[in-house]
Amino acid sequence: MATMVGRALKPAVAHRVIEDLNPPERILMGPGPSNVHRRVLQAMTKPLLHHLDPDFIHIMDEVAEMLQQVFGATGGFTLPVSGTGSAGMEAGLANLLEPGDQLVVISHGFFGDRLAEIALRHGATVTQVRGTWGEIIPLEDVEQELKRHRKVKVLAVAHAETSTGVLQPLEELAKLAHKYDALFLVDAVASLGGVPVEVESVGIDLCFSATQKCLGAPPGLAPIHLNDRALVAIQTRKEPPRSWYLDLGLLHKYWEGGTRAYHHTAPISMIYALREALRLILEEGLERRYARHRCNGLAMRAGLEALGLKLLVQEEYCTYQLTSVQVPYSVDDGQVRTRLLNEYNIQISGGLGHLQGKVWRIGLMGESCTSENVLLLLSALEELLPKEGFGIPAGYGVAAASQVLAEAYSS
Amino acid sequence: MATMVGRALKPAVAHRVIEDLNPPERILMGPGPSNVHRRVLQAMTKPLLHHLDPDFIHIMDEVAEMLQQVFGATGGFTLPVSGTGSAGMEAGLANLLEPGDQLVVISHGFFGDRLAEIALRHGATVTQVRGTWGEIIPLEDVEQELKRHRKVKVLAVAHAETSTGVLQPLEELAKLAHKYDALFLVDAVASLGGVPVEVESVGIDLCFSATQKCLGAPPGLAPIHLNDRALVAIQTRKEPPRSWYLDLGLLHKYWEGGTRAYHHTAPISMIYALREALRLILEEGLERRYARHRCNGLAMRAGLEALGLKLLVQEEYCTYQLTSVQVPYSVDDGQVRTRLLNEYNIQISGGLGHLQGKVWRIGLMGESCTSENVLLLLSALEELLPKEGFGIPAGYGVAAASQVLAEAYSS
Repeated sequence: MATMVGRALKPAVAHRVIEDLNPPERILMGPGPSNVHRRVLQAMTKPLLHHLDPDFIHIMDEVAEMLQQVFGATGGFTLPVSGTGSAGMEAGLANLLEPGDQLVVISHGFFGDRLAEIALRHGATVTQVRGTWGEIIPLEDVEQELKRHRKVKVLAVAHAETSTGVLQPLEELAKLAHKYDALFLVDAVASLGGVPVEVESVGIDLCFSATQKCLGAPPGLAPIHLNDRALVAIQTRKEPPRSWYLDLGLLHKYWEGGTRAYHHTAPISMIYALREALRLILEEGLERRYARHRCNGLAMRAGLEALGLKLLVQEEYCTYQLTSVQVPYSVDDGQVRTRLLNEYNIQISGGLGHLQGKVWRIGLMGESCTSENVLLLLSALEELLPKEGFGIPAGYGVAAASQVLAEAYSS
Repeated sequence: MATMVGRALKPAVAHRVIEDLNPPERILMGPGPSNVHRRVLQAMTKPLLHHLDPDFIHIMDEVAEMLQQVFGATGGFTLPVSGTGSAGMEAGLANLLEPGDQLVVISHGFFGDRLAEIALRHGATVTQVRGTWGEIIPLEDVEQELKRHRKVKVLAVAHAETSTGVLQPLEELAKLAHKYDALFLVDAVASLGGVPVEVESVGIDLCFSATQKCLGAPPGLAPIHLNDRALVAIQTRKEPPRSWYLDLGLLHKYWEGGTRAYHHTAPISMIYALREALRLILEEGLERRYARHRCNGLAMRAGLEALGLKLLVQEEYCTYQLTSVQVPYSVDDGQVRTRLLNEYNIQISGGLGHLQGKVWRIGLMGESCTSENVLLLLSALEELLPKEGFGIPAGYGVAAASQVLAEAYSS
C-alpha cells in the first residue's frame, strides 16, 4: 500500500546514478583494518534490535563477558565504546584525567604523541618521556619523570606501537605507576587479540583497544576495560569529563547493572560483528591465537631479512603482528605500495610521522595473519622490488619464511 | 598452514559456549533504530578496504555527495561522523562553541536538554529557552533571549523532537539567529530522510543527524553538514575543540580535498551500509519518501484517535514519522510495551524525562514506515488495550487509518 500511495505522488527527481557497491577483495596486510571472517560479516546481516530490547541487553552481556576473557580480567567493567580506536583513547584519557591533572606519557611513536595531544584537549598537564622510535623506553627515564612531579595522575603508554611495531613490556611500568600512586593506562589497539595483554596480572587500570586489528572485526568499536581503581577514579571526579558521548560513568549505567539507563543508541550491527569475532577468538583459544601471530610474525621477519631488507625493530622488542621494514634507498615507497595494491591486491601501509616514506608497515593481524599471506607478500616483493630498482636474491625470502613455519610446525 | 601450526600448540582453554547469534525479527516502531532494507544489511558483508584505499576514498566521495542531496545542500562540507547521533550532536557543539561562548538552546523536549548538557561540557555559557513539551517554541521567546546577550555564538534547536514528536519550524528561527549574528545549529536526528530539512534554503549553518531513523541504515554514524559560514567559524577558532575524535577541522582534512590526511580508521562497513541506504533514498526520490512518511503518519494519528487515545502533539506541529500518544490512566505503560514485544514482536518506546510512563512513542521511520505497519500496530492495540483495562471500540482504529490511506491514494 505504501507503494500505491507513493505512485500517486510527485515523480522522483533524477539523480546521478551511484553504482552497486563492489569493492575489490583486498588482502589487508597493513596495521588494520585486517580481513574478517565470513561469519563476522554475516553477523551484521542479522535483524536489528532496539538498544534496550531484552534480547539486545543479553547480547551486550555476552560481548562484555567475552571481552573480559580476552582482556584477561575477572572484575572491573568492560564495554565496547561506540567509536573507533581513537574514541577509546579519548574515552580513557577524558575520564581518568581532570583539568590540571598531571599525565606522564611515553612517546616512542606516533600513537604516544597522539595520547599526549588528546590529553591536552582535556585540560591535563602533559609530560612526555621521549624515546627512540623503534625501541622500548628505558624504565629509569620513566621513573625519573614520575619522581619529578608532586602527583602524577596517569602514566600512559602504547603497548604495541602501531607506527613502529615495538612491543613495550608492561609489568615493570605498571609497578612504577603504582609505586608513584598513578593510574596505568594502556593503548592495546594493535595488541589485543594478537599478543597477551592480561590487564589483571599485569596491573593495567584502564586499557582500550579497537576491533579492526587483531580482534578480527570491522572498525567501529573500541573495547575498553577499567578495573575497580579506575572506576573509582571516574566516580569520584570533581567535574564530569569534557566529552559527553565518551563519558564512561554514563556508559557504565547503560552497560552494567540494573538501571540500563539510556545514554545513546548502540551501534547494534557492529556489536553483532564483535560478538561473532569474539566467539571465533575463544573457539580458536587465546594461546593458539597468540602462537599463530608469533609464528607468522617470525616467519615474516625471517623472510624480509633474507631479502636483504632491514627491520626497524630488533626481535627482542618486536610485536609479531606488525613488522616495520625499512624502504630501501633506491626504491620509491608509494610506488611499491601502489603496485602491490594494483597488481597483487595486497595492502600494506607506509610510515607515520617522521618515518613517512622510510618504512613499510606490514600487518599480520586476526584473519589476515596466515602463513599463506606471509608467503604471498614475500613472493610479491621478490617479483616487484627488482623491477623497482632493488636487486634481491629470488626465492630467498619465501624459503626463509617457510623454514621458520616448518620448524614451528614440527616443534 | 596456519591450522597446522596451531594444531601443534597448546589446546584451547574451555570457555562457556556463547550460542550462534539469532536475534528475533522485530518490527521496529519506536523512534529508532528502524528496520533496514535487506540491501543495506547485505552491503555490510562486502569486503573491507583500508581507510585510505583509493577505492574507499571514492566511496567516501559518493556517500558525501548523496548525503548532500538529502541535506538539501550544494556547497559546504558533508560527512558522516564515526559515532551515533549523540556523537554528531557533540561534534556540532564542540566545534562551533569555544569556552565562554554563549549558546542559546531551545529546550522543549529531552534532546533540547541534551544539547544544553553537552554544550556545558565544552565550556559554553548556556541559556535555555524553555517551552512546553509537545508544543513549538514561540518566536518572541527566542528573540527576547537573543536580544538579552551581547553576543550569541550559536542558536540550537531540535528539528523533530524525538521525545515528543513536535516538528519545530526552522525558517523563522534561522532568520532570527542570523539577525543576531549567531550560527544556527539544528539537530535533525529524527527528521533527515523523513521530512524535508533543506539546510541551504532554510539557512542552517550546521546540521547533524543519525543513520538509524529515517535514513534507513543501522545506528553507528552521524551525518553532519556544515555550510561555509560554519566552516569558517571552525577554522578561525582560538583553540582546538575539547574533543580530538570529533574535531571537524581534522575530519575535514580526511574527508575532503587533496590531503586525505589520516585521522582515525573510518568504520568501513557502516559507511557501506549508509551508502546503500542513501541509494535507496534517492531511488525512491525525496518527495515520494516525505509523502510516504506523511501519509502513514497521518493514518497512524487518525487510527490512534479513533481508538479514543489522546495525541500529545496537535497536527499543525506534529512530525509524521514519530507520534507520541498518551498512555491511558487505567493502563500500565511497561506492561503494554512488553506484551507488544513478546506477543506481537512489535517494539514501540516509552516516554523520556518527565513523560516517562505517560506516553508511548510510535515511530514510522525509513523502512519501518509502511501502511502495513500502521495497520498492524493499530490492530494489536485494539486486541491488547481492552485486556489491559482500556475499553476501546474494536475495529475503529484500523478503519480510520485505512480511510486516510485510501484518500491519500485517490488524491
